[in-house]
Parts: sequence; structure tokens; C-alpha cells
Amino acid sequence: MRDVVDINCDMGEAFGRWRIGDADDGTLMPLISSANIACGFHAADPNLMDDTVRLAADHGVAIGAHPGFNDLQGFGRRKIAGTAKELVNDVVYQVGALKEFARRHGARLQHVKPHGALYMEMAANPELSQIFVQYMRKAEPDALIFCMDISATYTAAVEAGHRAAREFYADRDYDESGSIVFTRDAGRPDPAVIARKVLRACTEGKVRAVTGKDIDISFETICFHSDTPGALHIVRHMREALTAEGIRIAPVSDIASR
Amino acid sequence: MRDVVDINCDMGEAFGRWRIGDADDGTLMPLISSANIACGFHAADPNLMDDTVRLAADHGVAIGAHPGFNDLQGFGRRKIAGTAKELVNDVVYQVGALKEFARRHGARLQHVKPHGALYMEMAANPELSQIFVQYMRKAEPDALIFCMDISATYTAAVEAGHRAAREFYADRDYDESGSIVFTRDAGRPDPAVIARKVLRACTEGKVRAVTGKDIDISFETICFHSDTPGALHIVRHMREALTAEGIRIAPVSDIASR
Amino acid sequence: MRDVVDINCDMGEAFGRWRIGDADDGTLMPLISSANIACGFHAADPNLMDDTVRLAADHGVAIGAHPGFNDLQGFGRRKIAGTAKELVNDVVYQVGALKEFARRHGARLQHVKPHGALYMEMAANPELSQIFVQYMRKAEPDALIFCMDISATYTAAVEAGHRAAREFYADRDYDESGSIVFTRDAGRPDPAVIARKVLRACTEGKVRAVTGKDIDISFETICFHSDTPGALHIVRHMREALTAEGIRIAPVSDIASR
Amino acid sequence: MRDVVDINCDMGEAFGRWRIGDADDGTLMPLISSANIACGFHAADPNLMDDTVRLAADHGVAIGAHPGFNDLQGFGRRKIAGTAKELVNDVVYQVGALKEFARRHGARLQHVKPHGALYMEMAANPELSQIFVQYMRKAEPDALIFCMDISATYTAAVEAGHRAAREFYADRDYDESGSIVFTRDAGRPDPAVIARKVLRACTEGKVRAVTGKDIDISFETICFHSDTPGALHIVRHMREALTAEGIRIAPVSDIASR
Repeated sequence: MRDVVDINCDMGEAFGRWRIGDADDGTLMPLISSANIACGFHAADPNLMDDTVRLAADHGVAIGAHPGFNDLQGFGRRKIAGTAKELVNDVVYQVGALKEFARRHGARLQHVKPHGALYMEMAANPELSQIFVQYMRKAEPDALIFCMDISATYTAAVEAGHRAAREFYADRDYDESGSIVFTRDAGRPDPAVIARKVLRACTEGKVRAVTGKDIDISFETICFHSDTPGALHIVRHMREALTAEGIRIAPVSDIASR
Repeated sequence: MRDVVDINCDMGEAFGRWRIGDADDGTLMPLISSANIACGFHAADPNLMDDTVRLAADHGVAIGAHPGFNDLQGFGRRKIAGTAKELVNDVVYQVGALKEFARRHGARLQHVKPHGALYMEMAANPELSQIFVQYMRKAEPDALIFCMDISATYTAAVEAGHRAAREFYADRDYDESGSIVFTRDAGRPDPAVIARKVLRACTEGKVRAVTGKDIDISFETICFHSDTPGALHIVRHMREALTAEGIRIAPVSDIASR
Repeated sequence: MRDVVDINCDMGEAFGRWRIGDADDGTLMPLISSANIACGFHAADPNLMDDTVRLAADHGVAIGAHPGFNDLQGFGRRKIAGTAKELVNDVVYQVGALKEFARRHGARLQHVKPHGALYMEMAANPELSQIFVQYMRKAEPDALIFCMDISATYTAAVEAGHRAAREFYADRDYDESGSIVFTRDAGRPDPAVIARKVLRACTEGKVRAVTGKDIDISFETICFHSDTPGALHIVRHMREALTAEGIRIAPVSDIASR
Repeated sequence: MRDVVDINCDMGEAFGRWRIGDADDGTLMPLISSANIACGFHAADPNLMDDTVRLAADHGVAIGAHPGFNDLQGFGRRKIAGTAKELVNDVVYQVGALKEFARRHGARLQHVKPHGALYMEMAANPELSQIFVQYMRKAEPDALIFCMDISATYTAAVEAGHRAAREFYADRDYDESGSIVFTRDAGRPDPAVIARKVLRACTEGKVRAVTGKDIDISFETICFHSDTPGALHIVRHMREALTAEGIRIAPVSDIASR
């Protein structure tokens, strides 16, 4: 049984004067260990990126780039039929932008996690995953890739020898293949139910799929979404359940490098 | 009299399927020593940035970030009344994006040169220049700032002890203060006239202002614009005139570090 | 003393999945008589425009186009130094887009009101106002222009014989010239104070400037902002105060055409 | 055999200071009878739309709106996975914007023709075509829809009783189903070959598919692309071939209303 786990959450997903969700980043940041910070294509602008990176650095939260499809209106949840080369160029652009804010605040880039429809597309698209991993090996050899266990992304990372952290999705449902069921609207889940699901995944390595069948699940980091209704309650319940069982919360890079 | 000088030029200023100017980057790149590469706000997209950085690296041309106002339609030539903090955040974002492409192609960032109306605004705005220089000192201590001799930007860089390279504008006119006369449309200048003007600036340190009066001019790098009609002829004439006098062309970082 | 007045409010100023302010349009719409509907440049997207136009039409609220500077990130509150011709082309584009949604829902365009920094720029810029009014005379002869009494816009409309409705700003302060004091952040004003200020303006035609001096004020419509904190309370207090004095609320086009 | 036919062409597909293709709109406009004018989502900006609408009106060329996917970088040639409702809202927005410029220049809207990937998506997607046609019936009952003979769009228009004009693609290849073979890059075709192909389609109602088999083709308007290399030569050859056979060129609305 593990004694430490990472909790990651999407951060900095507002835009301009607009906000989203019912929890603010200032409240959530102290409760997580890794932040996936939006890079301006699906959410965020340079001002918010600067604020969010500083907030993460101030709380000792590990910084990740969270690049998405170039579609603010659709919040990166609508696939754009770009070529694999085009889409990776979009990722390079966004990762660089985010990393410069980290550098400005004396922090380093822990990881890269594609957002929304790009994450799902990459999971399903070996060519896209391979070009992405090639870029990471060349330009970001020390940054982890966040992905699903069952994904072309994880496969490509393993094949290339690039470090990856697999995610367990606290507020998403699983199908029997171990893939998450992607949705535009996740509803308002019960924090207690989520906490039990997460704890079981950590202690038993199992999760119940939407079909009712238990499946094995492997992961290094737990993900929940700041725009899921009740996000603050979700993370508090999760932390309580984990720490009550003696499981410590820490950035995945610290875990891996022990 | 100097025996070496840098020639810089804006590169990668197309967008999507569109092009501008009558000279293409592939033809110009071998003729310059420093490239100011557009970063997606006033021109360029991630695909073009990738291509342009690779092209520069292949020709041993030093790479600079060329951030502009966030206004593709206006080509960064229309001032946007953002706060100094907002505008520098836009610069941080763009520099980071460009630098990541350099990293991908095994190149380093030589310099940062703001574009168009942002360059002129920064030259006139001490607060903006100071916040920009503070960011450079913290995040890009090794990258030069390209600016005018007579500018708040140069003053701020000197005060902060940050290396700057002053520009001589081959295809722009000067007023008596030593500032360039900013224009949306520079017309089609005579390459021979420009070559003589540049050579005189290099050998005598003087240029004739629009008023007809000679003024002293100090600079480390010569700038011309790829969208000036006849850009290719301009740079060829310039190079011939300079090399005929025994003046070598090399990136400014090489010159300074001798 | 007047027995009827129009109340206008900016509507549809969210974007994509993001929201702003503490009052939602569905609650505010039944309480106003004219809606200034964002057109996608400073806020809104086509989906929201469709929803907002339908909402206004369903409540018998008169529909206005609310074009702004092309700057979602800055919410149209940062001036962009375009030429008068460029800026009016931006207005034409946005007005047409909004009007097509009105046509789709069987409604007509009552008015055009520029937003934020564009409203202020137009008020101060006779050339811009004149080109705008020329466009309105040609393409939208039946739509009113919403503007300040003391403004180049009102002057240009009067000179061209185009119908204009002057605004009284419920939640903004006045200087002694009769111009509003533009601000990025209006704070949280007291609804009761605003209601008294509005009632006095309607019954006495006077308002107290920030200097403490009373000035005369002429207007046909009262404006308040949906993103002013407490917007819902503000409009409710206003309506109560006005109706208690026997002043009816109706779209300005109905008033004028009596 | 027909004695009159319409020639339509995409116009106004530059953006900001950038241009595309080797033929300029000023040269092409006098040679066509219907212009599909870009609306700012895949190409064009409000300034160019104003210029292009005026140019069309000056030459008596019928004006059409040419809405595309919201993707300037991809020139509307990359599908965005929006819902049918979202995509039609994007179309409404763009058609309205373009129509307002027509109104400004005293012209009317003859037709709407979706662009690129949106045209192809609509041809294949009955739900999208139906929502689009419903919008047209309500808001633009007098404007024709340009589409392919073999398409969900034509089917939806016919079912709803909305007037449609079917296109023959001069510079694209056909498969045996009568659908065009969509491509990002059409190469440089031979103008004489195209002219013969067009003439045969007009006189015999037949075209040779890429498989070599002749298929029947029905159409009311001939389309060629201004960004196809050699566009100017293509249209000149076409016009000569058609007029030599006594076939007149005129806007499709004039033809239909005889």
C-alpha cells in the first residue's frame, strides 16, 4: 500500500474579467500538490498565468503546463482537426509561455498535462503522442507527462523512456477498459462518495466502472477538476480520507525522486 | 572605426496561410546575423515559429524573440492601452513561447526586441521599460535587449546593469533627437541610398536627420525590415558596402563576448 | 416632470463557459426596458448572443447592439489606437451580427450603444462620431444612438438629424462638465443612494457632481451596469422609487414615438 | 442547353496586412458574377469586408456571405467539433456582419455559402444542414443557399422549400458519387483543361470523375477559387470558352428570377 500520493488540479482557468466554477484558486491551491496551469489557448491570459504561477510557487505546489486546443469559446473541449505536427506546435508554444512565468518566479516546470479534448485526442492518437513525446525528450527532458494508464500517450512515453505520471480521476467515471468517460458536464458529485472511491483506489488499486464491474487501476497522481461543482468539498474530503489512513500528499516529482 | 557589426531583421511575420512583403524568409535568413522572430501576438503562429527558429538555427543566425501588442489585425502597429504590468505579462508569455521552440531546436535565445508600437511605447514609457527590464534580469539574464540609444528602454537597461544592444535603423528616418520617425508605411526606399547611410553610420557614427542636420548615432546592431519593399536588395547592398570596407557581419552576442 | 423613462442595461456580457458579476441576465431582463447586448468583441459569443436576444424578445425588452473594442481579455476597457475608419468598420460588423440574431427571433434593432472605452473615445472624438453617424444614417436609419448629452456623439447625431437617446448613468459619478468619470472598477454602491439620485434626476433634472456642485442633466434613458456589484438590488430600488412617483418604465423608442 | 450561367468565387480572403494567392480581388471581381465574401472567422477583417463589399457593388457583382469555422490560423479548413446549434450560431453571426456592410453600400445579400471544412461538414451532416436552413427560412428568406447537388444541405433546402443554387467546381476533382474531393492544396491546374471541363458540364451536363468514369452533374453556378494558383488565367479561359459558345455570365438570382 502506498504511503504518499500526489493530488493535481487544473488551476488558472478563468479568462480576462470572467470566472468559472464555485471554488477560487486561492482556496484550492493550499490543498493540492500539483497544479495544471492553463496556458491561454483554452483558458487564462498572461496576467492570470503570472498570478497563478506565483500562487503555486508561494504554496510549494509543483507547477505544470496545461496546454489545450486553441478555442477559448469552447474551453478546449471541442476537437480541432489539426495535424499532429500542428497540434504539437501549439503545445510547444503554450508550454514555453507557462515555463517563462515559472522562471520569472524562481520555480521550475514539474510536468505537462494536455487539457480536455486534446488530452483525450492524444490518448487515442499514437502519432500525436509520439511527436509530443519526442518534443518533450528534446526540450523538456526533466518534466513529467501526465496521462492515463490506458493511453497512447503513456505507451509513447514508456517506449521513449520519458517519465510519465498516470492519473486517477476522482470526479470522472471509468469504463471497463480503464479509460475515463469524457463529458462536457460532470454534474455535482457527492464528496463522500469520491473520497471513498479515491481511498479504495489508493489502498486496493481498484475502481468500479460504470458497468458495475471492478477494474484494476494504476496511477501516481489523483486528479480532480476545479470547475466540478463542489470542488472545494471534494478535495477536503479526499485529503481527510487519505491522511486518516496515513497517506501523505506530495508532488509527484518528490515522490518519484525519493 | 568598427570592424564588425550585427544585422538584425524581423522574421516569421506571416500568419496561417497568409504572407506579407516581397522577400521570403528563406532568402533573407542567410544574409542577416540576428533574427527577431514574431511570437504570435502581432504575427506568426506556432507552426511558423517552429519553421523560422529552425531556419535561423540552420544558418547560424542568432535567435531573438520579437513580442508585440496582441493585435494580429493591426500587425502590432496600434497601441493598446494596457497597464505596464499587463503589457510586460504579454511580453513574458511571448518570449517563453519563442524560447521553447529554440530549445526544441537546440538553440539559445540571444535577445528580445519588442515590435512596432510596443517598441515605441516602451521607448517612451519609463515604467513599462523598468518592469520589462526587471523581468529580463530575473528570467533572462543572458539575453540582450534590443532598443534605441535614445529610449527609456536603454536607460532602464543601463541602470539595472542588463546588457542591451542599440539599433541603427537602415530603412527608417531619424529626427534630430535621434529617435526614429515611426510610420505605418515606409514606402519603397533606394537600396543604394540606404547602403551609403549605413556605411556612414558605421564609419563616422553620424546620420542625417529628416531636418537635414547631421546627428551622432551610437549602435551595436543594424535593423532593416523584411516587409519594406525591396528588402532583399536593401540587405544585399548593405552587406556589399560593409564588407567592401572590411566590416564583418556577426551576431551581436559574439561581438560583445569577444 | 416626466411620466415615463427607459432603463437600459448591458446584457450578455459573459463569454464561453465563463460568467461575470453577481446578477444573471435571466433575473435582470424582466426589470429593464432596453438591453445593450454584447456583440462578441469585448464580450459574448454567438451562442450567448442568440440566447440573450431571445431572452430580451421574450420579455418585450427593446434590443440594442453594444459593440466594443476588439479585446476580450480587456473587456473592451482598453483603448486600441485604430483609425476612425477602422473602428467604425468594427462597429458595423458587430451591429450586423447582433441584428441578424434579432431578425432570427422576429425582433428589430432599437438602438446602438458603443461599449466601455469605445463609448468614451467616441464621446471625445468628433471624427469617429461623424463616421459612425454617417454609417447609421445609411444602414440603420431607424435605430437610435445611445450616448451622453455632453459628447461628440450626440453633437454628430443632432447635426446629421439622426435620433439619439441621451443616458443618465445611475451607477457612475459625474464631473462638473456633465461627463461621467470612467473607471475600470466602480466598487459596490448603495442601491438606496442610487435610487434617490435617479429619482432626483428624473424629477428635478439635476445631479450632484463629484465636486459637490449640482449640475443640470438631460436624458431619455437611465443606464446601470449588470456587472456592478449588487446590480439586482440597484435596479429593484430604482424601479420602486420611480413607480412610487408614478413614473412608468418603457423602451425609449416607444416613448419617442408616442 | 443553357444560355446563361453564374460564376462565383471566394473574395476578400486576406487578413490584416497579409495577402494570399497570386490574383488580387480587384482584377478578379470584374470577371465573376457572384462573390462569396469572407466574414472574419476563417479570413478577412471588418476593413477588408467593407472594401470587398464596395468592390462587388461597384462591379454589379452579386454579394454572398461566406461564413467559415472560427479558425483564422487554419483558414477554416480544419473541422471544429462544435454542436450543430453552435455552428449555426457562428453562421448567423457572420452572415449578419457581412449583410450590414452590404446595407451600408446599398446592396443586398444574394446568397450564403459556407466555407471550406464547414461547407463539407454541412454537406455530410443532415442535422447541421436542417438547423442552418431553418435559420435561413426565418431570417434570410430571399437569400439563396449555395451547395453541392449531392449534399445534405441541398436536401434540407429542397425539403424546406428554400431556394438553393447547386455548384459546379471548376478547380476541384469529383468522385463517382458526384461529391468533390476536398483537399488542402489543389496544386496548379491547367486553365485550358478547366475551361473544357466547365464547358462540357454546361453543354452536356457531364464531368469525368477521378476514377475516369463520366457522371451526370446538375448545377446553377460555377465555382473557382481565388487562391488556386493561376486563378486569373482560369477564369479568363472559362469566360472565353463559355461566351464563345454563346453562354452569358450573370448572377444566379437574375437567372432564377427571369
